[in-house]
Amino acid sequence: MTGTGKITVIGLGAMGAAIAGALLAKGFHVTVWNRTPEKAALLVQRGAVLASEPAAAIVASPVTIVCVSDYDTATKILDMTGVPATLKGRTLILLSAGTPNDARSLDAWVHAEEGHCLHGGIAAWPRQIGTAEAMITASGDKAVFDQQRSVLEALAGTVHFAGEGPGTAATLTTAAMAYLAGNWIGFCYGALICEKEGLKVDEFGQLMEGFTPMLAAEVRHMGEVIQHNRFSDPESTINTTGLDLRLLLQHTREAGLHTALPELAADIFNKAIAAGYGKEEHAAIIKILRKQDS
Amino acid sequence: MTGTGKITVIGLGAMGAAIAGALLAKGFHVTVWNRTPEKAALLVQRGAVLASEPAAAIVASPVTIVCVSDYDTATKILDMTGVPATLKGRTLILLSAGTPNDARSLDAWVHAEEGHCLHGGIAAWPRQIGTAEAMITASGDKAVFDQQRSVLEALAGTVHFAGEGPGTAATLTTAAMAYLAGNWIGFCYGALICEKEGLKVDEFGQLMEGFTPMLAAEVRHMGEVIQHNRFSDPESTINTTGLDLRLLLQHTREAGLHTALPELAADIFNKAIAAGYGKEEHAAIIKILRKQDS
Repeated sequence: MTGTGKITVIGLGAMGAAIAGALLAKGFHVTVWNRTPEKAALLVQRGAVLASEPAAAIVASPVTIVCVSDYDTATKILDMTGVPATLKGRTLILLSAGTPNDARSLDAWVHAEEGHCLHGGIAAWPRQIGTAEAMITASGDKAVFDQQRSVLEALAGTVHFAGEGPGTAATLTTAAMAYLAGNWIGFCYGALICEKEGLKVDEFGQLMEGFTPMLAAEVRHMGEVIQHNRFSDPESTINTTGLDLRLLLQHTREAGLHTALPELAADIFNKAIAAGYGKEEHAAIIKILRKQDS
Repeated sequence: MTGTGKITVIGLGAMGAAIAGALLAKGFHVTVWNRTPEKAALLVQRGAVLASEPAAAIVASPVTIVCVSDYDTATKILDMTGVPATLKGRTLILLSAGTPNDARSLDAWVHAEEGHCLHGGIAAWPRQIGTAEAMITASGDKAVFDQQRSVLEALAGTVHFAGEGPGTAATLTTAAMAYLAGNWIGFCYGALICEKEGLKVDEFGQLMEGFTPMLAAEVRHMGEVIQHNRFSDPESTINTTGLDLRLLLQHTREAGLHTALPELAADIFNKAIAAGYGKEEHAAIIKILRKQDS
């Protein structure tokens, strides 16, 4: 799409700069502000206007994207001299890291100033911003979302409205981060095991790349099973996997490797077996996780 | 392919029964043995011969697949009266869970009895055995592998020779298990976060299904980066992700959820930041994991 509107971007880290650049490339009139103004130099060369203060930046456009490291930083900027008075009738799009509580709390504050607010989570690397590969999940008032959809679509090929709850996008982003954390750490443990046995880690990576279609089917299936509490028709049981995970732990101990993830995994599966879920499928470990003190 | 050879399967759990069934379907003459012979009934109806003892089962065929829960169980069976004497000149294919040490130890024992031995790991659910969806990784003498390739190809669409080291297949299987453990636990944490905020877990599963092409590229990339110790050209840094993971931990605490995985993840990333790797990419956390006591 081609944009002809005015838009402000606050925060020019790797992601914020990519956002401002994508908006410039698509024809928007872009105003920017960053705590260290040097980061704006390349964008100014490309036509962006550098504002001297956050209040001036926000006044310049009907819509401001705030892409700073987290909601704490966003809140500090929005609480600076002169800023609250600029919000009335304007829209903020928060694309910063935060918990659902962070999003709800800032949302209430912006509404009290008679501003509008959307909260979005970005699933993309900075270089993917403005391309079909990027995905943005947003939540907040549906009418505000509909009004700003074209701005979000200038940034990401897939734009997903997650619901009216201001914390919904942050919840999905946080949940995705939990899944990604499991992936990153799990892969690094696999790499560690290969290294120690003298196998090539790049070949292990290729092998795991070949697994991902199976993992795609697996996460959809686990989601359905957990949603409907339907754990009794397993492809593979907690008993079988629990044994595999005890062997994983035994191996990392014997090999003198870091053991924290294998310990955690074996512990969760052992508790699920002890609780009588041994013949159910993997996803039934969520019943153990639901008991926060177990 | 169509097999006309004789083959023995020891162990008729879900996976062993699927293996024997796939071999029968492809025309092999199948002899089976299981500690509880009742599990053989359906296979006998389909033409399998039930042996009364492991020694008789092994004698019936030049090749025996051992698919019991783990190498301890396999070793106990192979040490039963009369069995060692049957091994001379015969081939065992071990498709049981075990550590690389387990595989090396049993391999040495089988060779001492003048038998041949392959060690394989199965990446498939039982229902996928005999189809293109299944993958088997095997290691051991290359000549023995070449001789038994057709048997393995009757079981799995993809058969991967991992190397001559008897423990290599077990290493890759154990490493894959570490990755899968991270996936399963990570997904369940994501599901837990969604449940607590009232979001539908099946929709979260669909969202994560859409992520898997990105994860495929990610694991290949991480494998290359770790293999070549090339952490300095990040898509996203340990600093950025470390902040996201601290927010994940904060959220699980505020929401009263189980915190073990977020604690582990935040801890590993915090240590990587403290060690000065903050501007490197995620995969650099392996430098922390390589220090077993950290």
